[in-house]
Amino acid sequence: MLRSRFRRIRLTSVQLVVLFYLIAVTISTFLIGLPIAHQQGVELSFMDALFTAVSAVSVTGLTVVSTADTFSVPGIFIIAFVLQIGGIGIMTLGTFVWLVMGKKIGLKERQLIMTDQNQSTLSGLVQLMKQILGLIFIIELIGALVLGTYYLRFFETWQEAYLQGFFASVSATTNGGFDITGKSLQPFAHDYFVQFIHTLLIVTGAIGFPVLIEVKNFLFSRQNSYRYKFSLFTKLTTMTFLVLVVLGAILIWAFEATSFFADKKWHETFFYSMFQSVTTRSGGLSTMDVNEFQEPTQLLMSALMFIGASPSSVGGGVRTTTFAIVLLAIFFFAKGATSIKVFGRELHHEDIHKAFVVFSVAVIVWSTGIVMLSISEPFPIVAIIFEVSSAFGTTGLSMGITPGLSTFGKIVIMCLMFIGRIGILSFLFLIRGTVLRERYRYPTERVIIG
Amino acid sequence: MLRSRFRRIRLTSVQLVVLFYLIAVTISTFLIGLPIAHQQGVELSFMDALFTAVSAVSVTGLTVVSTADTFSVPGIFIIAFVLQIGGIGIMTLGTFVWLVMGKKIGLKERQLIMTDQNQSTLSGLVQLMKQILGLIFIIELIGALVLGTYYLRFFETWQEAYLQGFFASVSATTNGGFDITGKSLQPFAHDYFVQFIHTLLIVTGAIGFPVLIEVKNFLFSRQNSYRYKFSLFTKLTTMTFLVLVVLGAILIWAFEATSFFADKKWHETFFYSMFQSVTTRSGGLSTMDVNEFQEPTQLLMSALMFIGASPSSVGGGVRTTTFAIVLLAIFFFAKGATSIKVFGRELHHEDIHKAFVVFSVAVIVWSTGIVMLSISEPFPIVAIIFEVSSAFGTTGLSMGITPGLSTFGKIVIMCLMFIGRIGILSFLFLIRGTVLRERYRYPTERVIIG
Ligand SMILES: [K+]
Ligand SMILES: [K+]
Repeated sequence: MLRSRFRRIRLTSVQLVVLFYLIAVTISTFLIGLPIAHQQGVELSFMDALFTAVSAVSVTGLTVVSTADTFSVPGIFIIAFVLQIGGIGIMTLGTFVWLVMGKKIGLKERQLIMTDQNQSTLSGLVQLMKQILGLIFIIELIGALVLGTYYLRFFETWQEAYLQGFFASVSATTNGGFDITGKSLQPFAHDYFVQFIHTLLIVTGAIGFPVLIEVKNFLFSRQNSYRYKFSLFTKLTTMTFLVLVVLGAILIWAFEATSFFADKKWHETFFYSMFQSVTTRSGGLSTMDVNEFQEPTQLLMSALMFIGASPSSVGGGVRTTTFAIVLLAIFFFAKGATSIKVFGRELHHEDIHKAFVVFSVAVIVWSTGIVMLSISEPFPIVAIIFEVSSAFGTTGLSMGITPGLSTFGKIVIMCLMFIGRIGILSFLFLIRGTVLRERYRYPTERVIIG
Repeated sequence: MLRSRFRRIRLTSVQLVVLFYLIAVTISTFLIGLPIAHQQGVELSFMDALFTAVSAVSVTGLTVVSTADTFSVPGIFIIAFVLQIGGIGIMTLGTFVWLVMGKKIGLKERQLIMTDQNQSTLSGLVQLMKQILGLIFIIELIGALVLGTYYLRFFETWQEAYLQGFFASVSATTNGGFDITGKSLQPFAHDYFVQFIHTLLIVTGAIGFPVLIEVKNFLFSRQNSYRYKFSLFTKLTTMTFLVLVVLGAILIWAFEATSFFADKKWHETFFYSMFQSVTTRSGGLSTMDVNEFQEPTQLLMSALMFIGASPSSVGGGVRTTTFAIVLLAIFFFAKGATSIKVFGRELHHEDIHKAFVVFSVAVIVWSTGIVMLSISEPFPIVAIIFEVSSAFGTTGLSMGITPGLSTFGKIVIMCLMFIGRIGILSFLFLIRGTVLRERYRYPTERVIIG
C-alpha cells in the first residue's frame, strides 16, 4: 500500500517537472517570437523561435540563428531570463516539486541535500534553497560587474559593456552557451582573465547543486571545518569532474600538439586545451572554432560532451556520477569483488543498476540520434556525431551545422536537448505508464553472457 | 576456502584459453608465412602473415591481402584448417578446458549444455561434444559437396569447383568470412541458391553451440518431442538472433529503398537486404560492395556487427544475449519492476549485472578503437567505424580500408579481433590479477544518478 502510493507520487512529480519544462518552452517560444525581441527587419520563423526556446530552456546553446544578429536588447534580456529559468530555476524547481509533492520521497534527496542533519525539516530546506539561489544570483551579479567593468575598454558605451558583461555572466553561470559577441569567446582567445572568470562561472553551474550546498556548509559551518564530512556524492562527482577536465585538457593538448598547436606558444596551448576541456562539461562557450581541430579531437570532445555535467546541475549528458559508477563497477567486477568500495563507503546495488541503465539508454539514444541525422542531413558524420553529443550533453558546442539542419533534424536535436536536460531517468520514468505489479514469481534461470 | 579455490581455477581456465589462442596464432603465422602457402612470386611480410593468422584464428575474415591472389592451394588448405581450429576448435576447446580444469565450475556450463539431465557426467559431456563436432563436420561436408557440385557449372575443372565448394563451406560454417573468389559472394549476387546454402551454414555457426545441442536433443530425443523443454538461454538467444536478422533486413531495405535499391527488382532487394543482414551476425561474406550503400546503412550495419553473434558460437561482439538482457533490463526498470520475467523464467541479477558490464566495456573498447584509428588512419570516419565494429564483432566485412591500414592501425584491429573473439568477460577476467579479498565492509551511501 505504502509502496504503491510511493510510486504514484514519484510518477506524478516527474510528470510535473516535464510539464513545467513544456510550459516554459511554450511561453519562451512566445516571448522569443515577439517582434520587440528582434532587431529591425529580422523575421524569425516559428520553427526557429521554438528551437531557440528549447535550446534556452534546456540551457544548451545550440542556435539556428545568430543571437547577436537576430535579437534586440529586449530580446537579449528575454533570452537571459529564459536561461535563468531553464538553468537555475528548473534545477531547484525540480527539487522543490519533489520535496513538496512527495514528502516520503524527499528522504533520499533530503539526505543528499542536507548534510547538516539538524536542518532536515521541510521549512529548513526551503530556507536553504533560498540561500543557495541567493548565492548564485550574487555570483552572477559579481560576474556581471567584473566582466562588465573589464569590458569597458572594448566597447564605446558603458551600456554596451555592461550588457555584454551581464549576458556573459548569466550565460556562463547557467551554462547557457549563448553568446551576443557573435563569435562565442573567440574574441577573448588571448584574454586569460576573461577565460578565467568564465571558467569559474561555468564550473559553479556545472558542478552540481548539492556540491554547492555542501561547500557553503563547509565554509560557513558553525562547527570546526576540519570535522565537516562531505557526502559520498560530492566526493565522487567532484573528483570525476576534476579528472575529466584535466584528462580532457591533456588529451586535447596531445591530439593537437602537431597540428592546431604546432605554431602556438605554451601558454596559448595550455589555455586553449583547458578552456575547451572545461566547456565540454556543459558550458558550450569556446575560445576557438572547433572546426580547426582534427577529427580525433572532435570525437574526443564528443565523448566528453556525452558524459556531461554533474547530476542536479545546469548541465546534461549521462552525468559524471553515472560515468564514474559505471567505470568503478567494471573495475570491481573485473577484480572479482562483490561490492564497490570508494571513499570509505559502499555503493548501493540499486544505484549501480541505475547507472548502468542510464549509460546504456544514453548510448542507444545517442546512436539512434546519429543514424537519424545521417539519414536526413548532408553533413559529414563527425559534425553529426559532434552535434548529437552536444545536444544530448546540453553543451551547445557545434561544428556549425545547426543553422543548416532540416526541419526533421531540428526536431531530433530538440528532442535530444530535452532528454539531455530532464535526464535519462526522468525520461524513463515518463514512459512508465502503469506499474507492473509483481503478484507472481518465476523460477530463476541462468544464461550465458558475452 | 571453497570460494577461493573456485576463483583460482576460473582464472587459470581463462588464461589457458587465451594461451591456447596465442599458441594457435603463433603456429598459424608460421604456417601462413611458409613459401609453399603462397602463389609464385608473392612475398608476404611478417605483419601481413600475423594479421591473416589473427583474422583466421578469430574467424573474422578481415584481410590485408587478397586471399585469392596471394595463397596457393596448400595455403588455402592451411587457412581452411586454421578457420576450423579457430571457429569450432576453440569454441569446444574453451568448454573442454573449463570442464576438465574446473569440475566445480562446469556446473553452470553443464546446466546450459546439458538439457538432458541424465547425461550430466563428465564422460557423457565429452561424448556429447564429440557428437556435435561430428555433426558440424557432416554439415560442412554436405555444404562442400552441395556447393562443389553446384559450382561444376562455373569452373573448368572439377578440382577447382570442389576446392571452391570446400573452402566456401568451411568459411561459411565457421563464419570465417574469408573468400577465394576474390570478391566474396558478389559473383553470386543473383544466385539465390548459393546464398540460401551460405545463409544456412552461417546461421549454424553463429546460432551458438548450446542451441545446436538442444536442437539435436529435441530432434533425436527418446522422449516425446512435444514435451522437450528448451532452456531460457536457447529461447532468448534464438529469438534475439531472429529479431535482429529480420529487423536488420527491414531497416537496410528501408534505408536503401530510394538509393541502392531504387532500380532493383523486389526479389533482388529482398535477397540483398536479407543476406547483408544475416552476414552482420558474424558471417562476413557479402553479395555486394558495402561502399555502394548509403552512410546511414553503413552505420546501421556497424551497430548490428557490434551486437554480433550468440555466446558460445563462432562469432564475436557483445553477443545476442547480452544485448537482449540490456534491453529487457531497461524496459523492466522503466516499468518499475524489480525482476525481469521472460519466457516464464526470471533472470538472475548477477547475469543482468554481467550483461551491463559487458555492454559498457564493449562501448568503451569500441569508441577507444575508433578514436585511435581516427588518429592513425587517413580514411573517412564511417569506414573506420565500420572497420572497428567489424573487427570487434569478428564479422570481417569492410569498406575496403584493411589493406591500407598503418602498422599501428593493424595492431589495433588485431587487438579488437582478439578481444571480440575471446569475449569481453574473458578479457576482463584476464586483467583480474589477484582477487580483491573482501575482509571488511563499509557503510552503504546512496548517490544521485543521471
Ligand atoms: K550549455
Ligand atoms: K566472420
